[in-house]
Amino acid sequence: MKTIEIKDIKEHLGKEVKLRGWVRNYRKASSKLRFVIFRDGTGDIQAVAFKSDMGEDNFEKVKKLTIESSVELIGIPGKHPQKEGVFEFHIKVVNIIGIAVDYPIGKKEHGPDFLLSQRHLWLRSRRQNAIMKIRHTVYFAICEYLNDKGFYRFDSPILTPNASEGTTTLFEVPYFEEGNAYLSQSGQLYLEAGIMSLGKVYDFGPVFRAEKSKTRKHLTEFWMMDAEAAFVKHEENMKIQEELIRFIIHSVINRNAKELEILERDIEKLKKADAPFKIMTHRQVIDMLKDKGVNIDYKDDFGAAEEEMITEDSEVPIFVDRWPKDIKSFYMKRDPENPDLVLGADLIAPEGFGEIIGGSQREDDHDILLERIKKEGYDLKDYQWFLDLRKYGSVPHSGFGVGLERLIQWMSGVRHIREVIPFPRLINRIYP
Amino acid sequence: MKTIEIKDIKEHLGKEVKLRGWVRNYRKASSKLRFVIFRDGTGDIQAVAFKSDMGEDNFEKVKKLTIESSVELIGIPGKHPQKEGVFEFHIKVVNIIGIAVDYPIGKKEHGPDFLLSQRHLWLRSRRQNAIMKIRHTVYFAICEYLNDKGFYRFDSPILTPNASEGTTTLFEVPYFEEGNAYLSQSGQLYLEAGIMSLGKVYDFGPVFRAEKSKTRKHLTEFWMMDAEAAFVKHEENMKIQEELIRFIIHSVINRNAKELEILERDIEKLKKADAPFKIMTHRQVIDMLKDKGVNIDYKDDFGAAEEEMITEDSEVPIFVDRWPKDIKSFYMKRDPENPDLVLGADLIAPEGFGEIIGGSQREDDHDILLERIKKEGYDLKDYQWFLDLRKYGSVPHSGFGVGLERLIQWMSGVRHIREVIPFPRLINRIYP
Repeated sequence: MKTIEIKDIKEHLGKEVKLRGWVRNYRKASSKLRFVIFRDGTGDIQAVAFKSDMGEDNFEKVKKLTIESSVELIGIPGKHPQKEGVFEFHIKVVNIIGIAVDYPIGKKEHGPDFLLSQRHLWLRSRRQNAIMKIRHTVYFAICEYLNDKGFYRFDSPILTPNASEGTTTLFEVPYFEEGNAYLSQSGQLYLEAGIMSLGKVYDFGPVFRAEKSKTRKHLTEFWMMDAEAAFVKHEENMKIQEELIRFIIHSVINRNAKELEILERDIEKLKKADAPFKIMTHRQVIDMLKDKGVNIDYKDDFGAAEEEMITEDSEVPIFVDRWPKDIKSFYMKRDPENPDLVLGADLIAPEGFGEIIGGSQREDDHDILLERIKKEGYDLKDYQWFLDLRKYGSVPHSGFGVGLERLIQWMSGVRHIREVIPFPRLINRIYP
Repeated sequence: MKTIEIKDIKEHLGKEVKLRGWVRNYRKASSKLRFVIFRDGTGDIQAVAFKSDMGEDNFEKVKKLTIESSVELIGIPGKHPQKEGVFEFHIKVVNIIGIAVDYPIGKKEHGPDFLLSQRHLWLRSRRQNAIMKIRHTVYFAICEYLNDKGFYRFDSPILTPNASEGTTTLFEVPYFEEGNAYLSQSGQLYLEAGIMSLGKVYDFGPVFRAEKSKTRKHLTEFWMMDAEAAFVKHEENMKIQEELIRFIIHSVINRNAKELEILERDIEKLKKADAPFKIMTHRQVIDMLKDKGVNIDYKDDFGAAEEEMITEDSEVPIFVDRWPKDIKSFYMKRDPENPDLVLGADLIAPEGFGEIIGGSQREDDHDILLERIKKEGYDLKDYQWFLDLRKYGSVPHSGFGVGLERLIQWMSGVRHIREVIPFPRLINRIYP
């Protein structure tokens, strides 16, 4: 007899097979009939237990099954009598592996703190399972797109001697005799070394921000993909980003129809976002926000509330382009047409999901970059190697960083970032 | 005119195109002829500069080119006059982007300390470039194999409250009001929660060991893939590992022929390793080592020297199976036929590349695991969630961990681990 997975059930209709997995739920229909909602990681199926099909002993075992018990079921898959395209499983033999007593997550509403403490179990819920499958798709859609475009994966280090995005939100790690190391906030600077060898590179790993923010948008540990390419200028950089995001939308719609349904995601909204993106300058966005009554200045950055307003009338993401230099990083190249601005754009998702990409052309002139590093007050010896990249074979180049979790939130329509990573790390949480 | 990459050169023979990249080297043949070895990340090509082809001005520019200068070349690709399958590029126009003055890495031999300090530049060498391309292949061959087998990517956290492999080699990170967090040494325990939702999962990220070892095999930060699967037992676990490793060998041979040639890798040895792997018990291996004159006991672990001896007479990797329980982790399941042994195996690569995989079936009984955790002296509250996995729906399960860098070393034939990761972190090095 074959052991099969639920995802392959329709290839075995009418044949006796074995399933292995867990009881998601059960229902007593009568003294002779029970239903078990059975799951095995590849899918869920309704298993039907007729006392007359399986005999007294096996039916007694069915009666012992509780939520999250592990079990082997031998039986025959068939079509659901009423529902088109749905299958069910007629149980003949039950082999109990482990009976779960008082599984702590029930049908009632639990608070987020309780669920986060039970994250190792909460992950089994239909919703969390669906989110993790979408995470898998988004991760590999990004890799697939970039690999296909000739980018090489180039892992930047986590332990770093210097800070790429300011020093107030760094986690420190005592490092032997070397003093403190810091957990990386972005691999970008290292990628700029990588392109000089490989042309186009990306990293995709965990990054860390010791931010004291406790919002639904903040994690202290999250995943980031940074991409960087030699000879790519600002406009082409935005084009690559747009193509990438649209490829991800396609991939999720095509590969995760079932999961999007479980999450009750409005797929039409995703489909509508798969159209040419808009570009607005930072200045145009400020004007728009002023029109909407926001008290904001041309030199200001956006908060979460403003970010949501930027795309509230748009079905597609919007690039906010050409920011004032003073609110952006030292490594961004100045706009040759207006040196108060940088050749950088942030991509804001629709439906209030906020910034998903930050990108820019990089400053490639040694002396200008040196001045900027000095002006920021950074220690020059930390950046010597970075300056070397402008001394030996500097070329125009651009790149961008994608926050994986923000993107998953948008794709899956999940409002709280804590649900889209297996084990979220928050300011007050490192367990489990 | 088209801008092309060197890898596509043979599709543009005889047509005027533009290349962009860097000067790897140059050679003066006469007052009217120079050769430039030109690279762009996708490949290298010999560019030929005839004064008569390009005129005085352009030839003067060629004469200015130094090692690692960045430049645009317009010209015509053609076949090499002597070498079959090799192409060259006839330069017509030279646009200098940046002249590199005194590039620090020269033709002479440099010591490893100097090269590590210049890692951001050293990466450009033909050898380092080839290694990074093989790294890309190995990384995605692993993902490809596992995705194809129905494993889901499931990122385990880096910041953790507990230690999976002992507490002496942990990096500590002060974490807000929560006390210390630790940098992960392995995601395995978290994957065991993942399989209860998704069936088969893997992570693939950086892990950290604060080991005070300064050998050619040690990094403080390296990349590890952990895989875990529900309902998989010890023997099947080894079969998955063998298939995975053989898939990686295939992939590297097929995708990196050019890079293996640059590295002077003996491909025949790789091809011979792609045959059924051997399995020896730990006891058999000890006997073999004793026969070879090693002073070793049946309860001993292997050092680097012993690991090399294990496969010195074998063309294929060898699984060292069924280890004494006392030298292996608490979570490994005991051999039902001999409770002094565990159902665990390490995979040792041939050619002296040492251990590349550690795997085992996991203890799935709650009470036995509880006893072990107590016996190790670990704090029970750190492991409560891990014990929960045995309380609610425990199933037989197995998994393994692959050290990415060790695998790349073997595939590329590189003796020093510091060369197979973009920015190696060693006990005395976090720069650049």
